[in-house]
Amino acid sequence: MEETFVPFRGIKNDLKGRLKCYKQDWTGGFRAGFRILAPTTYIFFASAIPVISFGEQLERNTNGALTAVQTLASTALCGIIHSIVGGQPLLILGVAEPTVLMYTFMFNFAKDRKDLGEKLFLAWTGWVCAWTALLLFLLSILGACSIINRFTRIAGELFGLLIAMLFMQQAIRGVVEEFGIPERENPNQMSLQPSWRFGNGMFALVLSFGLLYTGLRSRKARSWRYGSGSLRGFIADYGVPLMVLVWTAVSYIPVNSVPRGIPRRLFSPNPWSPGAYSNWTIVKEMLDVPPLYIVGAFIPATMIAVLYYFDHSVASQLAQQKEFNLKKPPSYHYDLLLLGFLTILCGLIGIPPSNGVIPQSPMHTKSLATLKHQLLRNKLVSTARKSLQRNSNLSQLYRNMQEAYDEMQTPLGLKEMKESTIELASSSGYIDAPVDETVFDVDKDIDDLLPVEVKEQRLSNLLQALMVGGCVAAMPLLKKIPTSVLWGYFAFMAIENLPGNQFWERILLLFTAPSRRYKVLEENHATFIETVPFKSIAAFTLFQTVYLLLCFGITWIPIAGVLFPLLIMLLVPVRQYLLPKFFKAVHLQDLDAAEYEEAPAISYNMTFEERAIDIDGGEILDEMITRSRGEIRHSQKQIYSSVSVARTIGFGHYK
Amino acid sequence: MEETFVPFRGIKNDLKGRLKCYKQDWTGGFRAGFRILAPTTYIFFASAIPVISFGEQLERNTNGALTAVQTLASTALCGIIHSIVGGQPLLILGVAEPTVLMYTFMFNFAKDRKDLGEKLFLAWTGWVCAWTALLLFLLSILGACSIINRFTRIAGELFGLLIAMLFMQQAIRGVVEEFGIPERENPNQMSLQPSWRFGNGMFALVLSFGLLYTGLRSRKARSWRYGSGSLRGFIADYGVPLMVLVWTAVSYIPVNSVPRGIPRRLFSPNPWSPGAYSNWTIVKEMLDVPPLYIVGAFIPATMIAVLYYFDHSVASQLAQQKEFNLKKPPSYHYDLLLLGFLTILCGLIGIPPSNGVIPQSPMHTKSLATLKHQLLRNKLVSTARKSLQRNSNLSQLYRNMQEAYDEMQTPLGLKEMKESTIELASSSGYIDAPVDETVFDVDKDIDDLLPVEVKEQRLSNLLQALMVGGCVAAMPLLKKIPTSVLWGYFAFMAIENLPGNQFWERILLLFTAPSRRYKVLEENHATFIETVPFKSIAAFTLFQTVYLLLCFGITWIPIAGVLFPLLIMLLVPVRQYLLPKFFKAVHLQDLDAAEYEEAPAISYNMTFEERAIDIDGGEILDEMITRSRGEIRHSQKQIYSSVSVARTIGFGHYK
Repeated sequence: MEETFVPFRGIKNDLKGRLKCYKQDWTGGFRAGFRILAPTTYIFFASAIPVISFGEQLERNTNGALTAVQTLASTALCGIIHSIVGGQPLLILGVAEPTVLMYTFMFNFAKDRKDLGEKLFLAWTGWVCAWTALLLFLLSILGACSIINRFTRIAGELFGLLIAMLFMQQAIRGVVEEFGIPERENPNQMSLQPSWRFGNGMFALVLSFGLLYTGLRSRKARSWRYGSGSLRGFIADYGVPLMVLVWTAVSYIPVNSVPRGIPRRLFSPNPWSPGAYSNWTIVKEMLDVPPLYIVGAFIPATMIAVLYYFDHSVASQLAQQKEFNLKKPPSYHYDLLLLGFLTILCGLIGIPPSNGVIPQSPMHTKSLATLKHQLLRNKLVSTARKSLQRNSNLSQLYRNMQEAYDEMQTPLGLKEMKESTIELASSSGYIDAPVDETVFDVDKDIDDLLPVEVKEQRLSNLLQALMVGGCVAAMPLLKKIPTSVLWGYFAFMAIENLPGNQFWERILLLFTAPSRRYKVLEENHATFIETVPFKSIAAFTLFQTVYLLLCFGITWIPIAGVLFPLLIMLLVPVRQYLLPKFFKAVHLQDLDAAEYEEAPAISYNMTFEERAIDIDGGEILDEMITRSRGEIRHSQKQIYSSVSVARTIGFGHYK
Repeated sequence: MEETFVPFRGIKNDLKGRLKCYKQDWTGGFRAGFRILAPTTYIFFASAIPVISFGEQLERNTNGALTAVQTLASTALCGIIHSIVGGQPLLILGVAEPTVLMYTFMFNFAKDRKDLGEKLFLAWTGWVCAWTALLLFLLSILGACSIINRFTRIAGELFGLLIAMLFMQQAIRGVVEEFGIPERENPNQMSLQPSWRFGNGMFALVLSFGLLYTGLRSRKARSWRYGSGSLRGFIADYGVPLMVLVWTAVSYIPVNSVPRGIPRRLFSPNPWSPGAYSNWTIVKEMLDVPPLYIVGAFIPATMIAVLYYFDHSVASQLAQQKEFNLKKPPSYHYDLLLLGFLTILCGLIGIPPSNGVIPQSPMHTKSLATLKHQLLRNKLVSTARKSLQRNSNLSQLYRNMQEAYDEMQTPLGLKEMKESTIELASSSGYIDAPVDETVFDVDKDIDDLLPVEVKEQRLSNLLQALMVGGCVAAMPLLKKIPTSVLWGYFAFMAIENLPGNQFWERILLLFTAPSRRYKVLEENHATFIETVPFKSIAAFTLFQTVYLLLCFGITWIPIAGVLFPLLIMLLVPVRQYLLPKFFKAVHLQDLDAAEYEEAPAISYNMTFEERAIDIDGGEILDEMITRSRGEIRHSQKQIYSSVSVARTIGFGHYK
């Protein structure tokens, strides 16, 4: 993306780029068929559960002025609009923790002013949203998103880890609170007696750890040995929602003599009660807000605008990392403009606005990569099977597969691969021999041919937003989920997103015993492990860790806490001007590639040997997209095991 | 072992064989130094925890006539005597579940007779023990143990799995009972109100699963990446005792407003109270038992004798399996004779007798194999380091290592290995070049050279028995352990002993998806997986599973339950005469090698390529002794990774 600050140019470019693929965004989605439900459900849960929990938090903090109904409504509304008219459909929108914090501060401010008070709180936030929208429009039109390129891996991964820490903090705090007396409950009721509170807390530990453990295990189901392939796939795709169901069911096991309220479940107002809708007509009261406060609303608005500008762009960026090989263009400027409209819309109907969220947005892309992989795989497997039946030779088989692949998408990856494979096969004299299952193992070899690709479309985003909307109606059902299952889910989200974060991998590396570092080299690993001296890696990681702890510390300070993104944005000049003084340019290039630095392009050509990894099904992809983002070096081991594959499939060349 | 039924011949042979190495049994143990504490502590916990729990069970069943003090005393006394004058010092003695069941039946019988009653119960069991001892003497003298060879893998592994099931059943039952009201407690006390019982049960779930999970993880510490090698070794060696401490500490965290008795802890009498010693003088009352009952004691005595004959011999056999490469002779006949003496001794002082226990005995051998491996390793590493400093060449280095190895023990294994390695090195022209760390990686390569060997000595057995004895004195401390930690430990013992049991591995194989079976071949695996058709494996395993369930079912039937070993002994004729009618001899040979069947000896020559497995530390050994007992086929993958090792260490031959 070029850095341009000419007004409207960014927006125009974005629109031009996205309009070209708009139709394909829909047709591609529908063509995926029912399989689209796997990433949809996965993201729906990742999106809805925190939003519900933030809603509950907001309800406590605003004396019920805003509840989970409003946060869900905002997430659904913004999600639906963004998925239809937004630029980048991989981006997931939702009410996030910083929004909750801002609204809490604003409520505490408003309720103590006698000419504002709780009554006019929502009307006043309408003004805040209006100012915020104005600022977002300006930022968008003036091309502020252009500098997103300067926001490098060091900042993105630090932000990712910070979010993981905040989720984990919420999980721990939630479980600890299960032992205490919830604020708004009557402390004399049976289930809040010390004995039952103790039992409730212990039960919460069981439920939350149960969900966390089984959730993490189920995501790895594709590599299980037991059960049929479709069952394993089903568990890997739907394991987490399934586990929420299972542990909710478990929470109903102790019925005898256990009082109501144990375990504690979601507390949310009935969306069908008349009071739940009082805020939708807030626009009528906006002119009742005293002029001083209308002007004063500009102050929180600047903070929210900075926050949204940052969060939205970074979430979008993390959903479009280089290693996903996306083929459709980004749309930072236009999406920020749309976010402005969404913010003012939410403000006018008295609900908290949504913005692009982490980790849900990158989770969305990852799950769509898995989907795309499966679709391509099925197509190629059936083509290869047909070729085998017709006894064609190896070169014919590859030609057929290439055609099938081309039918599905613009060609990428397969072509070079095919050539190198055919080259290999020719040199060994196998290319013209009739091909059979011993030469070409359909199940295993096709996985080796497939590059990482993402099913880029709008359907999954739209569907998940609709499902979030459905949650408002399904509130009576949702209330059956124990809160402790929610805390387990928060911990799950924190841990699920750690692998692949190079910052995290480097922290682990620091704790790896020197005698065991060779094990890291045996797996897929980032380039820097081979090219940068350990001391430099350690110094860089230590600096980043201290910075992370600083950011985490800031979130604990009441009002300043919301502005932790500023601290992360400060990383841009630090990275650009300060770090090069302490680290060699080539090392920085490997540790944190930045586009503004001149450096030789890192080639990312996986040759056949490197591709032929000896694992099957979706595992190969899971490995590639979770274990190592960015430049990947393959391990010795895999090269050798690919030799073994080559032997198995008969390339005498290797013998 | 020859099958001989000439009176006394077996005992004489045993004594002759063991006397030869008696001195070395002690010197070898002391030479191991403080490292002997690792297997000692490991076995001490495996031995003491079930014995304490069985003692509690016995206390409930006998109205306190026998308690954990007596079971611990018996285990300690028999253990000390056996470790000093016993034949096979790898065999661990202890009060086992069948003994507890028999004593319960006898108590229920005695208490209802008015001329016997609870008062004369212990005196009567003295007579039962006397008769049992007599029968054991007869069995031992007449060479009954000779037929132990007919007791093949099918029966041994079935028995092992049955024990695992019984341990797991005890664990589950124990945790479930944590939710209920314990029998002998006052149901009105605070901690037994429904609310606290619920909390107690949930806390028990947390503690038992916590111990199980962390215990299993800590055993794998040697392959962790983090922390120094000595820390990893320490955790792997002492992890389980450590976790018992940790989770006991955790059980003390909830102090505020939680009543005494939550979580429930061990209930045992104070060993220093006067009542605890009333049974030691039972011999004086033995003549008060009516003559009819003295004669009648012969009936339970036959059952116990059969049970002990079987348990003791099988425990001894499982501790001496072929793959452990033991160098000292077995001692079945003499040990059975000694067991007779121990039984009568225990009977006369009114404590339940001990016999050889599973799974502790094979656990003992395994932990000593790990110890031996470490000792050999340290010696060879220091030798190799010295050679490297002196810049000697590769052949000199191997010569030095061979000498160091010879010093430690009778040569085995290393010699052939050395030759094949030297051969390889010569052919590549490296043998006379000066050797350095790139050619010979001290840490990695030495592991590849070491065969499985066991540190056979008496010290660890003596020490663990003494520590069990110390438990009697430390009872006030032991009472701090929550019962739920015990249940977790039972589950740990059940699971810890599954890997390596071929029966278990075959059950897993049945559930492995056909498309994933190749993964089994990639790991170390037993021969049968390659040589026996899947259908035969399945049929054999199904038969064994049905038989196992039958045995398990039998244990549920009150008095007959004790005699489930008879059902397992029935497997001997079934295996010898029935199974050959349904399975091909070659297949049976691979599934269940029996000495009475003629079959070509299976060579167990690991060549250098096979040995050079790409994992380090104790892992290689853990892998060899836990993943695959018996004949081992190495995987493709490992051969290739050994090629990579060969490349790393510079054998151009492979390039």
